Amino acid sequence: MQAQRGWIKEALPEVDERRRVWEAFLDGVGYEAALAGEHERARESLQALVEGRERQGEVWLVGAGPGHPDLLTLAALRLMQNADSVLYDSLVSDRILDRVRRDAERIYVGKKASHHTLPQRDIEAELLRRAQRGERVLRLKGGDPFIFGRGGEEMEALLAHNIPVRVIPGVTAASGCGAAAGIPLTHRDCAQSCVFVTGHARADGVLNLHWPSLAQPGQTVVVYMGLGQIGVLCQQLIAHGLPDSWPMAVVYRGTCADQHVVTGTLGDMPQRVQKEGLSSPVLMIIGEVVHHRGVGAFPAFNAFASKEEA
Amino acid sequence: MQAQRGWIKEALPEVDERRRVWEAFLDGVGYEAALAGEHERARESLQALVEGRERQGEVWLVGAGPGHPDLLTLAALRLMQNADSVLYDSLVSDRILDRVRRDAERIYVGKKASHHTLPQRDIEAELLRRAQRGERVLRLKGGDPFIFGRGGEEMEALLAHNIPVRVIPGVTAASGCGAAAGIPLTHRDCAQSCVFVTGHARADGVLNLHWPSLAQPGQTVVVYMGLGQIGVLCQQLIAHGLPDSWPMAVVYRGTCADQHVVTGTLGDMPQRVQKEGLSSPVLMIIGEVVHHRGVGAFPAFNAFASKEEA
Repeated sequence: MQAQRGWIKEALPEVDERRRVWEAFLDGVGYEAALAGEHERARESLQALVEGRERQGEVWLVGAGPGHPDLLTLAALRLMQNADSVLYDSLVSDRILDRVRRDAERIYVGKKASHHTLPQRDIEAELLRRAQRGERVLRLKGGDPFIFGRGGEEMEALLAHNIPVRVIPGVTAASGCGAAAGIPLTHRDCAQSCVFVTGHARADGVLNLHWPSLAQPGQTVVVYMGLGQIGVLCQQLIAHGLPDSWPMAVVYRGTCADQHVVTGTLGDMPQRVQKEGLSSPVLMIIGEVVHHRGVGAFPAFNAFASKEEA
Repeated sequence: MQAQRGWIKEALPEVDERRRVWEAFLDGVGYEAALAGEHERARESLQALVEGRERQGEVWLVGAGPGHPDLLTLAALRLMQNADSVLYDSLVSDRILDRVRRDAERIYVGKKASHHTLPQRDIEAELLRRAQRGERVLRLKGGDPFIFGRGGEEMEALLAHNIPVRVIPGVTAASGCGAAAGIPLTHRDCAQSCVFVTGHARADGVLNLHWPSLAQPGQTVVVYMGLGQIGVLCQQLIAHGLPDSWPMAVVYRGTCADQHVVTGTLGDMPQRVQKEGLSSPVLMIIGEVVHHRGVGAFPAFNAFASKEEA
């Protein structure tokens, strides 16, 4: 980029103007092109910025992590501070939204597991519309965008219209809740694998899961959401061969200040969560790893306590 | 903590001294106690710091993410900058280690999947020894500490000796490689679940996996490591019912500058990886999601290009 400094200095004598151009360039598609060795495309992008032509829109599919703002990645935070607009849903906490650039437009696209959600097609259309008019659009998703986030569908819809897409992975809810509850997801002694499923029922009310694969010893089953289906879930796992006494934990708002962990078994968990009055969002961890939960002198679940909270 | 300021100011008239004490307190076990409402324990910890008594050691099990330093969490970065010593293995890149506090002691505990590894028991003993002499010990692990990181075992070993342990989740390699290769791990059309297994063989050379559960359509199988077992792996999945043509991707050093993605099928992947000369570490993604890979105008795999690299 050294070679570009000369003509830009001539075209824009004001240092503030030049700074604006370089910042826009570094945050945009042109810089990515430069890194990929596509110098012609990078130079075009720079030229467009210098001439004040409208910049190319982009969409950033960004994982916001499990809830605690300290579990944002550096990449996510940087993009949150550069976006023109942000589309988010209810799995993204207020404390995370607080870190988005103050003057970015915020668009709430609804609650998961409810009927008040903006339909997926409408979300994709909104992302497309904004990118096409030159915005840098942040699509902020709880957890990781490619694990039950429908990020794949959004990426495809945008790439089909030649909109540049960046995908920034996040700490998925399973990792966040496991760490925060002190429950490992794999363990030499009892869990050589780990399977993630969603507890959302289909439109016809059926929980579309492959029970024989899930009801296996030697693995951990993590269920994203699905508190409403917990009765069927436990029942089916028992019906397919796991014992009543198989351990299970339900984690409400893992990593957040109001986190609540309930442990029990497949046999008693449906009553327990009712008794404890748990509501969504939850994540369920099913398997013998629950017996390895670290509840020593120093509980793991306030591990993320941020200095800000002091 | 407001109530403590008075007597501390009297005990330590120098502002630099007070700053040292507060910093040590905020990064330590006393502050966590305060947040948990254990005011007596918090006050004791503060008193010990003011009197210059040795502070209590701790171990922080921290996920370093898939490789790119921008995929560190804010929590990980903060702890990396506060640790007295760091135990790390070969899955933690140099660019990440560069962000550890300059004067922290660095202890390399060996390569995964090799015989030059410090045995797990020795790692645990080293963590314990250091924490017992008052160090804040960072155990830095590639990916997430609770997914194939043996973090659960380390946590248990330390809690058994009443050493405070914090667990900070990280972006697991599956999320990192998926995003960086543009491959979603779940997708409404073809993958309602996602299973993580390790491709490490047991000491007797057998790959201990439950093939009938893995050879299912409608899910994504992610294999951590295990390049050496790729022949057996593909063969077994086919033998248990998946077609030869079942899609598969192998991602070498996902999210890093030298990332390399090879796509193919169960039938041809063993030859392909040989032809491409792929070496460890790799992550394999097996399932129809590979067909949804985003390889549009703007490849996702340089998504993390950091400004530093310019």
